[in-house]
Amino acid sequence: LKIALDAMGGDKGPAETVKAAVLASKSLGIEIALVGPPELLNAELEKNGASSASVSVVPAGEAIDMEEDRIVQAVRSRRDASINVANQLLREGLAQAVVSAGNTGAVVASAITILGRIRGIERPAVATLLPYNAGRVLLLDIGANPECKPSYLVQFAQMGSVYMEKVVGVKNPRVALLNIGEEAVKGNDLTKEAYDRLSEANINFIGNIEGVRVHKGQAEVVVTDGFTGNIVLKVGEGLADYILEQVRAVVKSSPLFVGASLLMKPALRKALSRLQYDEYGGAYLLGVNGVVVIAHGRADAGAITNAIKVAKAAAESGLIETMRTSLNAAEPAEPAEVAP
Amino acid sequence: LKIALDAMGGDKGPAETVKAAVLASKSLGIEIALVGPPELLNAELEKNGASSASVSVVPAGEAIDMEEDRIVQAVRSRRDASINVANQLLREGLAQAVVSAGNTGAVVASAITILGRIRGIERPAVATLLPYNAGRVLLLDIGANPECKPSYLVQFAQMGSVYMEKVVGVKNPRVALLNIGEEAVKGNDLTKEAYDRLSEANINFIGNIEGVRVHKGQAEVVVTDGFTGNIVLKVGEGLADYILEQVRAVVKSSPLFVGASLLMKPALRKALSRLQYDEYGGAYLLGVNGVVVIAHGRADAGAITNAIKVAKAAAESGLIETMRTSLNAAEPAEPAEVAP
Repeated sequence: LKIALDAMGGDKGPAETVKAAVLASKSLGIEIALVGPPELLNAELEKNGASSASVSVVPAGEAIDMEEDRIVQAVRSRRDASINVANQLLREGLAQAVVSAGNTGAVVASAITILGRIRGIERPAVATLLPYNAGRVLLLDIGANPECKPSYLVQFAQMGSVYMEKVVGVKNPRVALLNIGEEAVKGNDLTKEAYDRLSEANINFIGNIEGVRVHKGQAEVVVTDGFTGNIVLKVGEGLADYILEQVRAVVKSSPLFVGASLLMKPALRKALSRLQYDEYGGAYLLGVNGVVVIAHGRADAGAITNAIKVAKAAAESGLIETMRTSLNAAEPAEPAEVAP
Repeated sequence: LKIALDAMGGDKGPAETVKAAVLASKSLGIEIALVGPPELLNAELEKNGASSASVSVVPAGEAIDMEEDRIVQAVRSRRDASINVANQLLREGLAQAVVSAGNTGAVVASAITILGRIRGIERPAVATLLPYNAGRVLLLDIGANPECKPSYLVQFAQMGSVYMEKVVGVKNPRVALLNIGEEAVKGNDLTKEAYDRLSEANINFIGNIEGVRVHKGQAEVVVTDGFTGNIVLKVGEGLADYILEQVRAVVKSSPLFVGASLLMKPALRKALSRLQYDEYGGAYLLGVNGVVVIAHGRADAGAITNAIKVAKAAAESGLIETMRTSLNAAEPAEPAEVAP
C-alpha cells in the first residue's frame, strides 16, 4: 500500500511531514510518496536518517494557500502544486490514498477537479470523528459547503453511514440531523425540508439531535451544513482549550495543588486526549473517487502519522467501491407498476 | 422596583420559582409579583415562611408549554397564561421587568404580542453571556430566529452593543460576526451579505470571528442567526458536561486521586462555575418594549434568583429607553445636501 503525502501542506511544512512519513512507513509497514520539491525533501529525509524507510520523493511545487475566492483558480492553474500532484498519483493508481495538512479549500477543490465526484454525489463533504464517552460520532459537513441544499444533507447522511460501517465498523449506524429541537417542525428552512427527505432515504435515520446530545453517543452520524458544522467544531475546540486552561490555572495557583495534580496527570491526560482533534488524524473528504484525508493545519508529525493511519484503514476497507454501489442502491427505487 | 416572575414556567415549577422569589426579594431588596394560580402559590409561600418578604401573588393560569408550531396560537388564545399575565403587568407599568423559566418560544411570542417590538427592530433576539477568560461576551441570537435576513443581524449587533454598554458597562463594545473564516468573502450567503451591512452600521464592527476565538475575549458582542447560535450554545453545554464527566471519572478511579482532588475541589469549582450557564441568570430578550429575562428551563431557585438579578440590573440601567434612541440614531443618516 502506498500513500501520497502532500509534504508542503500544513503550517509546519516539510519538517513535520517528512518526519511523519518516516514514522508512518515504519510503524504501519506501508510506502509513502512524499510530494514536493525534491531538494528540500531529500534534505529533510537525511536529517531523519531515512535510509531504511520506504519513503520516496515525487517532485512537485509549493502548496496552495490562498484566500478562498481564488483557490479554485489557483488549483486549476498550478498543476505542479503539491496537492495536485498527490491527487494525480491517486488518480493514476500510483498511490492508494492522499493525505494533506494543507488548506482545506485547496484540498477539496483539487480532489474534485482531479479525482472527480462519485456518481450521485452533488457535493463532497468533509467529515470528522468527534469525541464522546461511549464510542464515536462522525460529524459532516464541517466546512466544504457553507451553503447547502436539502439533497446535499441526504447524500452526506448516506456517505457518513457507509464510512461508519466500512471504516469504523459500526453496523447500521444511527443517523441524526443536527437541529435546535427534536420535533420535525423545528429548525430553519434547510433542516425542515432535509428532515422529510432523510426520513425517506435508505438509511437508519433517527430524527433530529440537539446540540447538547451530540457528545452523548445517541447517533453515530450527525449531518449538518458546512457552515454550522465548522462553527460547532471550532467553538468546541476553543471551549475545550478554555476549560483546560482554567484547570491548569487552578493547579498552578498553589504548590500543594501542583503536587496533588502530578499524581493524576497521566490518567487525566489519557482521558482528555480524546478531546484533541489531532488524535483522530484529521478529517475525511467523502464523495470523491479516492481516499483523501485532511490533517489539521497545525498538525505535527504525530498527528500527521495518525492521519496516515486513517487513510490506510480507509484504503484497505474498500470504502470507495462500497460507496459507489451503496449510493446508487440508496436512490429511491421507482415504484413498481401494478399490472391492471 | 417590582419584578413579575412567571411562577409556572420551568421544568421544576412553583417549588423553585417561589423559593427564588423569597430569596431574591430579600437579597436584592425588591418586590416580586408571583404570577400563577393563587392557591398553589400561597401554599408554596407558606412552606417558605415568606411572611416578611415583599412577595405578592397575581392570579393567572398555567404555563404554556407546547410544540412550536402551535405556540403563537396558544399565546394568543390563552390570555390567562402565566407568561401573558406577567407581560401584561410590565406593559401596564405594574412591574418593571419580567422573568420566566418557561418555554422560550412562548416567552418570545407573548412578549412580542403584549409588549410589542421596539421601533426599527424587525425581529427581537435572545442573547446570552458566554464564559471566557478575560471578561464576558454576549452571543445573539440563540434561538428566537432560526431563519435570518442580513438586516436582522445588523439589528442584533446594534441591540447587543447597547446591552453591553448600558447593562454590563463595556464602553464601545467590539462586535464580531460568527463565521467560518476571517476574510469578508468567507461564509454562507447570509454572513457574506451581513458582513457588508455590518461594516456600514453605526457600531464598533471588527469583522468576522471564527468559532475557536469566541471564548478568547476578542469581541464583546458576537452576532449570528438563531439556528447557529442555539447549536453553538447547546453543543458547548454538552461538551462542557462531557469534559467534566471525564475529569470526575479519573478522580474516582483511585482513592489517592480522590484525596488529591479534595484539596483542589473548591478552587476548581470556583474556576469552572463560569461554565455553568445558570450562573448568568439566563438569557435576555432584546428588542421588545420592556425588560424580559428568560431563565434556563432546568433552572433551580439559585439560577432563577440570578435571572432576577439580571432583570433588576437591566431595568435600573434604562436599557429600553437607550435602545429606543440608539436604534433610531443608528439608522444611517441621509447625506447632507451640499449647497451649490
